[in-house]
Amino acid sequence: MEMIMRAYSNDWVSNSMMYKHGVAKAPTGKVHTLSAEVQGVYNYTIGPYSNPVLEVEPGDTIIAETQDAFEGKIRSESDKPSKLLKVPFLNPQCGPIMVKGAQPGDTICIHIEKMVPRGDQPRGTCCMIPEFGGLTGTNLTATLNDPLPEIVRKIHVDEETVHWSDRVKLPYRPHIGTLSTSPEIDSINSLTPDSHGGNMDLPDMGPGTVTYLPVRVEGARVFIGDAHACQGDGEVCGVAVEYPTFTTFTVNVIKNYDIEWPRLEADDFIMAIGSTRPLEDACRIAYRELIYWLERDFGFERYDAYMMLSQCGKVRLGNFVDPKYTMGAAIPKKYIA
Amino acid sequence: MEMIMRAYSNDWVSNSMMYKHGVAKAPTGKVHTLSAEVQGVYNYTIGPYSNPVLEVEPGDTIIAETQDAFEGKIRSESDKPSKLLKVPFLNPQCGPIMVKGAQPGDTICIHIEKMVPRGDQPRGTCCMIPEFGGLTGTNLTATLNDPLPEIVRKIHVDEETVHWSDRVKLPYRPHIGTLSTSPEIDSINSLTPDSHGGNMDLPDMGPGTVTYLPVRVEGARVFIGDAHACQGDGEVCGVAVEYPTFTTFTVNVIKNYDIEWPRLEADDFIMAIGSTRPLEDACRIAYRELIYWLERDFGFERYDAYMMLSQCGKVRLGNFVDPKYTMGAAIPKKYIA
Amino acid sequence: MEMIMRAYSNDWVSNSMMYKHGVAKAPTGKVHTLSAEVQGVYNYTIGPYSNPVLEVEPGDTIIAETQDAFEGKIRSESDKPSKLLKVPFLNPQCGPIMVKGAQPGDTICIHIEKMVPRGDQPRGTCCMIPEFGGLTGTNLTATLNDPLPEIVRKIHVDEETVHWSDRVKLPYRPHIGTLSTSPEIDSINSLTPDSHGGNMDLPDMGPGTVTYLPVRVEGARVFIGDAHACQGDGEVCGVAVEYPTFTTFTVNVIKNYDIEWPRLEADDFIMAIGSTRPLEDACRIAYRELIYWLERDFGFERYDAYMMLSQCGKVRLGNFVDPKYTMGAAIPKKYIA
Amino acid sequence: MEMIMRAYSNDWVSNSMMYKHGVAKAPTGKVHTLSAEVQGVYNYTIGPYSNPVLEVEPGDTIIAETQDAFEGKIRSESDKPSKLLKVPFLNPQCGPIMVKGAQPGDTICIHIEKMVPRGDQPRGTCCMIPEFGGLTGTNLTATLNDPLPEIVRKIHVDEETVHWSDRVKLPYRPHIGTLSTSPEIDSINSLTPDSHGGNMDLPDMGPGTVTYLPVRVEGARVFIGDAHACQGDGEVCGVAVEYPTFTTFTVNVIKNYDIEWPRLEADDFIMAIGSTRPLEDACRIAYRELIYWLERDFGFERYDAYMMLSQCGKVRLGNFVDPKYTMGAAIPKKYIA
Repeated sequence: MEMIMRAYSNDWVSNSMMYKHGVAKAPTGKVHTLSAEVQGVYNYTIGPYSNPVLEVEPGDTIIAETQDAFEGKIRSESDKPSKLLKVPFLNPQCGPIMVKGAQPGDTICIHIEKMVPRGDQPRGTCCMIPEFGGLTGTNLTATLNDPLPEIVRKIHVDEETVHWSDRVKLPYRPHIGTLSTSPEIDSINSLTPDSHGGNMDLPDMGPGTVTYLPVRVEGARVFIGDAHACQGDGEVCGVAVEYPTFTTFTVNVIKNYDIEWPRLEADDFIMAIGSTRPLEDACRIAYRELIYWLERDFGFERYDAYMMLSQCGKVRLGNFVDPKYTMGAAIPKKYIA
Repeated sequence: MEMIMRAYSNDWVSNSMMYKHGVAKAPTGKVHTLSAEVQGVYNYTIGPYSNPVLEVEPGDTIIAETQDAFEGKIRSESDKPSKLLKVPFLNPQCGPIMVKGAQPGDTICIHIEKMVPRGDQPRGTCCMIPEFGGLTGTNLTATLNDPLPEIVRKIHVDEETVHWSDRVKLPYRPHIGTLSTSPEIDSINSLTPDSHGGNMDLPDMGPGTVTYLPVRVEGARVFIGDAHACQGDGEVCGVAVEYPTFTTFTVNVIKNYDIEWPRLEADDFIMAIGSTRPLEDACRIAYRELIYWLERDFGFERYDAYMMLSQCGKVRLGNFVDPKYTMGAAIPKKYIA
Repeated sequence: MEMIMRAYSNDWVSNSMMYKHGVAKAPTGKVHTLSAEVQGVYNYTIGPYSNPVLEVEPGDTIIAETQDAFEGKIRSESDKPSKLLKVPFLNPQCGPIMVKGAQPGDTICIHIEKMVPRGDQPRGTCCMIPEFGGLTGTNLTATLNDPLPEIVRKIHVDEETVHWSDRVKLPYRPHIGTLSTSPEIDSINSLTPDSHGGNMDLPDMGPGTVTYLPVRVEGARVFIGDAHACQGDGEVCGVAVEYPTFTTFTVNVIKNYDIEWPRLEADDFIMAIGSTRPLEDACRIAYRELIYWLERDFGFERYDAYMMLSQCGKVRLGNFVDPKYTMGAAIPKKYIA
Repeated sequence: MEMIMRAYSNDWVSNSMMYKHGVAKAPTGKVHTLSAEVQGVYNYTIGPYSNPVLEVEPGDTIIAETQDAFEGKIRSESDKPSKLLKVPFLNPQCGPIMVKGAQPGDTICIHIEKMVPRGDQPRGTCCMIPEFGGLTGTNLTATLNDPLPEIVRKIHVDEETVHWSDRVKLPYRPHIGTLSTSPEIDSINSLTPDSHGGNMDLPDMGPGTVTYLPVRVEGARVFIGDAHACQGDGEVCGVAVEYPTFTTFTVNVIKNYDIEWPRLEADDFIMAIGSTRPLEDACRIAYRELIYWLERDFGFERYDAYMMLSQCGKVRLGNFVDPKYTMGAAIPKKYIA
């Protein structure tokens, strides 16, 4: 088991499926700034009904000013989340960004290049929110127990270290918690992951990796937000080290290639991602999608892939605290070359 | 994400909790051979009702001749598992081994040192068994769909490589799928994991790690079996590369230290293990036990541990194919030193 | 156990909470016709973004021309559902109907009075749809098994009998499968139930009962559809006897009374309704909401209600086939008078 | 929905499958008394390893002196369950009773005729036990919340009424919570239901019904206990009105008829019973077994039965509080005659 979350490199990305199969064969070099001013109002629901904030070409790069998941409302350790936060106005998203030429049946590629912390220190926030998290009764796992106490932690975050406590310093391992295209006719709150992406909370979805999402509406409508300075598998208390960033990412489009669920590519592995409840069903989705992928693109016979993954598949638990839970199933590129 | 399962070292074990807190402060050097002859009939149920096959002292070492999970009945790729296997006579276990001085309220420690393949090549077996596995209807996730085909794979296994196919060679990463002490009055089939251990199918439970199990009956009654030459997270098709071994392990007893669920220690992490359905509940158990452990032995405050694991906890999916599913929740030793 | 689904009477409704606490103390007598022409395009997603088709006063009655769940596309037993149906364009809904004076924090009441079959015989449709239903792998409980065969049944339905087969005649026990108010900012496909109502598939939600739903947007935005001529608990194959109707219902508003989840009142019981996965969580929601209701409105102490329901609570399984599962928890009015 | 649990009649039993297909075509008239003295030590685990207390012929009747689930240890409302109860010594069972001629592959029939309360008043007990129940974190749905308070209710029970409180009187509707044959080699604690029966907590399993259980060892080894004076669907707080009884039941054997899961027959319905987690899987088992039953014994085609049950199947939730959850799926006899 790898105990410290590793950083991924951007070096391999020119050889990714994103550039092998995408419309753009390399970044265009054009950079769009999606500042808070350009964004205006952030989004709490992901769908086809909101107004576009940006239109880009495949290969273009965007620098987005992401808010933390609490939109900066939790400022001190004496704040009470239950007083400051109001469902469903949680987890503000940048976007929608329209990608020219993206049409239903295509796949969007998002290469996250860089995540730079912004805002005053201590800029990281963790907290325990009543009836939210993995080890407490919730609105869905409804119990009569008294809620856990509300506790806020403000954390110094820089590009090397997350200063958790005097005792514990964690490496800065940023990733995007929520990354989406739009559903066809539904609009899904930004706390929930599903087949369109959403709040997957996958620690791998950071700089140096490419995420693939299904296009279900003209222009794809990309949403991004919920940056985490680091996160453990499962995000057990329900909250990572939430913080505001400048996040730099490049988009691309693979035409006429449809996927049912999100996928991720890193330097040495590919991963399929499922989100639902109970957790075993998220795992079923992820592994089945990975098998379909091996069959379609890598020349494996279906049952051979099934039995092989039983020997070398790797699983990442995104979260088991959101309205739906997320799991990724992965295989080393070494075995599928 | 670490894509290739790493091998653990035995070097650190003299500094493990097993020897720090155990009755034996070092291996006694006494070695017991638990050959197939000594074992006689293997066990398919784990409880207090079977006859002991060996009695050992804390610090003693045992070399057990484990059978593969099918007791060697699947010999060729034309065999039909459904004709050769008969529930509940699956997953034969060595033991019970009585550990002198172990009493209810104590903890048993099992350091797995070495797993050497035995038997004729191809000695590894994988197969698809009707209504068994992660991506099929089963006896519990009951569906009306036709079962998947029965397919048998016989695999060449040596101490370096699992020869999966011409295309794919996997590293030899042995571990014990099933490791148990006895429940107090129940007897649980060897396919099912629970708080006594059992069929956890955790890829980390191999050479170079120490497993801790609760003692619930006089002498603990240790059972061991189900060696895997390698296994992916989740054991998705329901079967790893099953093979017969000589497995060498040393036992110890920590007196007056009670644990509710199994635990595992490696060179650079500690892990708590939960087994139940649905999978999110296994995850809840594992993380709660890990928090209790950090609180009891490492000086962490409960909610600080909860929020910290939300940033740096690591999850291993053992399996989601057995009658109960297994997950481990871990933290690097680096953070708890 | 009551084996034949009973019909409920409308006689008691003048004494329901709907008229005891609602703005209208009796029906206004005003009747609105929501014909297919007035409706125009039916809705497949339930949210705040669609155009209202009707505006009514509390106490007004609506006669809605509901379509069957397949919008009439399945016409003969030789049709293939997989060719005629296209996700997410399933389960067409009438509405949204704006209810004057309804504001967030209020509760909408819907008294279903009558459901009259319409259209040519055989007007009822049941079918087996690939990867949909309770006893098959699905898109969420993802398996590799071949799907079940596609089978269509066309069924003669009149106001007395559902002519299932020569052997089996079932009583006509109509109910509305999908009944909703709008979420605040999300838009949820009409196949999914949640706290706003949606596709609950509760056999009790028919003539003679009152459903209570939370108001989350101005005017409530009521949606209705998915009539079933009869349905078993759980809707196990995924499809009831789907048919088009004239459905007559009256709406009302309880001001300043907020509910988190849907509720239902009949002549002799009250029921709270939960929808999520896994099914035990739907059951937890339903029972907790029922306890909160007994506490708030009927003078019971919380834990007394909890223990009492352990002796006399009744559970109705709506469905375990939709993207979320629905359960109702009920108590006889006799015990809470 | 039937809101008050109905009483079943014994009149129809001479026409049941028990006497139609059983070895005994009518009761033998021989009555065995299984008093506390004859029983000696009660059993907390159900398996092949305990000593038989009685041997009977098919058609014989037994009057068993059942203990309440707490073995009478909770005597007053000031008692603390957590101090008096010790896992796994809960839910004491009478038996094992050996049934002559019963062999693996046969089915045991148990007709419960009468349940008479015994012991001093108030002889009924309900309580809230820390980390046990449907609306609380538990040892499996592990949370960090403080446990609910311990509350004990002592209840006057007679053959007409359960005197819950001054406000609420419930009808006496006795049933057996735990009814089992022995697994083949496992021994399962009496709190857990599974395919051998066990702690199913089905309100229908009372006087006037016949339960069918699989025979997996010579003599079947029947265990019985856990009488409830009444119980709601789901047994939501984890405890029914537990009480000691004289329970009268008659056993029979159907030779060469094997069942995988328990079944129940009443005057007007048949029911198949599944027990596992999550709850939807218990429902899947129950409905699949019912379909198999309709196919094997009642001449229905498989998919016709599947679609028909989608229109007229009835579900009873036994419990969602035990280590495994129980659901029954039923169909009226009227439709299968």
